[in-house]
Amino acid sequence: MIDKILAGDVAEAARLIRDLDDRRPTALAAVKQLFPHTGKAYVVGVTGNPGAGKSTLVDALIAHYRAAGETVGVIAIDPSSPFSGGALLGDRVRMQRHALDPGVFIRSLATRGHLGGLSRSTFDVASVLDAMGYSRILIETVGVGQDEVEVMKAAHTTVVVTVPGLGDDIQAIKAGILEIADVFVVNKAERDGSDRAVAELAMMLDLSAHGEWRPPIVKTSATTGAGLPEAVAALEAHGKHLRGSPEGARRREQRARSRLLALLEARFRAAVETTAPEPDGLEEATHAIVARREDPYAAAARLFERVVSRAETVRRA
Amino acid sequence: MIDKILAGDVAEAARLIRDLDDRRPTALAAVKQLFPHTGKAYVVGVTGNPGAGKSTLVDALIAHYRAAGETVGVIAIDPSSPFSGGALLGDRVRMQRHALDPGVFIRSLATRGHLGGLSRSTFDVASVLDAMGYSRILIETVGVGQDEVEVMKAAHTTVVVTVPGLGDDIQAIKAGILEIADVFVVNKAERDGSDRAVAELAMMLDLSAHGEWRPPIVKTSATTGAGLPEAVAALEAHGKHLRGSPEGARRREQRARSRLLALLEARFRAAVETTAPEPDGLEEATHAIVARREDPYAAAARLFERVVSRAETVRRA
Repeated sequence: MIDKILAGDVAEAARLIRDLDDRRPTALAAVKQLFPHTGKAYVVGVTGNPGAGKSTLVDALIAHYRAAGETVGVIAIDPSSPFSGGALLGDRVRMQRHALDPGVFIRSLATRGHLGGLSRSTFDVASVLDAMGYSRILIETVGVGQDEVEVMKAAHTTVVVTVPGLGDDIQAIKAGILEIADVFVVNKAERDGSDRAVAELAMMLDLSAHGEWRPPIVKTSATTGAGLPEAVAALEAHGKHLRGSPEGARRREQRARSRLLALLEARFRAAVETTAPEPDGLEEATHAIVARREDPYAAAARLFERVVSRAETVRRA
Repeated sequence: MIDKILAGDVAEAARLIRDLDDRRPTALAAVKQLFPHTGKAYVVGVTGNPGAGKSTLVDALIAHYRAAGETVGVIAIDPSSPFSGGALLGDRVRMQRHALDPGVFIRSLATRGHLGGLSRSTFDVASVLDAMGYSRILIETVGVGQDEVEVMKAAHTTVVVTVPGLGDDIQAIKAGILEIADVFVVNKAERDGSDRAVAELAMMLDLSAHGEWRPPIVKTSATTGAGLPEAVAALEAHGKHLRGSPEGARRREQRARSRLLALLEARFRAAVETTAPEPDGLEEATHAIVARREDPYAAAARLFERVVSRAETVRRA
């Protein structure tokens, strides 16, 4: 199975990805074996508000990368909610025009919950696509809640897509995106106010502390195709910047640490959950706090010692 | 100091809150002592996009609650970024008209980072205000990233404030807010499209699974004051619903568990960090992943055992 996936077998990879989403132990073992073969793909995260045109941009990026002879893996994070609306699904259906191209492999992963956040298996699925040999991996978020922040931890380069007319205060206050964006795309540039949106972003960048790389702002129009080559060029320029710079090394380390910490925390959380039904375990500690018999700090200190002591017993056994 | 705070001493409380924000051990010890005196206040979280008018609503809620003889503590989460803009600060300055009223106590807390999230001390500060005897506590978020989700874990009742004209897809796709909102407020009702915004929310609620409580949708106008009494009534109705229902008990437990888990995870994270500079510690494990010498799963398994073993040694000592 590992050999097949390394050779780019799409059916085998699809099975593995499904099993990864179910967190099957065999699938996790496969990722471990694939891991030494990863690290070659350039991973681009595409985020921004719902409705900003992320899928349209991803669709265009696929076409441009293919024309340039690259192969492309796409991870599209799907909102698990029925309220996600037709527009987004419509765009994604359009993206499927690439599905017959053997140089393109598109997978949807459900969000971790209604409240946003990448699928738990995003990192692992990116590793699978990487090991399969796709030279470019695009991760498209839903653009809600925490997934904007999380995609930054998975991607080399993060593109924030925005549209004119979302309102000044909304644009201006979303200062967080300044720390996420390596490239800004102002989509629907045919709309009124696109120049102002660009100017506002530029002003925010002027005021902010950034390193050697100042995130470029690219205006695109999905209807005319204007600006798309410039958007691709901006992405690739950032990728090149990272390859040669200490910033690139720092980010590689940050990504590895994020993944490591997430796995450690999952282990710890599982260890806490095993105490739930036991005397003095998670349930009883929760009840003690509700009843004000114990304060949360004392309960946490006690439960932490208990979890550690039990994990150590398991380790020694 | 504890006695003074229980008696409502504002200067002493302000000092404690400042120390809590710095995570001073003496301050945490004080919260432990105050904890048995908490659980009486009704806590309302106010969230929604930046620019939706959260501060205006909070300002109006204070006035209504004071007129009804309640005392009010306010925790306003401040974006720590300089890009937060004047509008928000302006609204908050207006809120300060209540600062001379001894029945009102307003504190600002910085967000945990540019990327959103309540201040780490939000839970603790709410406990302090509760112990001081304020009958209503209002928590106003920035409305960016994870703080929408987090406020739900701190509050009894969560109000989501929105405005007409944010765009269909944005409204429709933010399905996450359906799980957060106990009450919807459509602010700036004098704007075009407010009836459509209400209708869209109502349609989303029709399609969604909710329990016995269907979140009411209230139109308000800060300029005319219309709808504000109805908004207060909706909040209070939800509070009453919780007091009598299994849902209320379930939420009390959920809040206690969230707080407990957050404290446990902070302890675990600290234990992981102590290994950072050591041989085979966090730094070396990260480097091994970057260099593909070790896969993340193997590294996490090894480091977890190490953290546990060391914590157990500390515990026994």
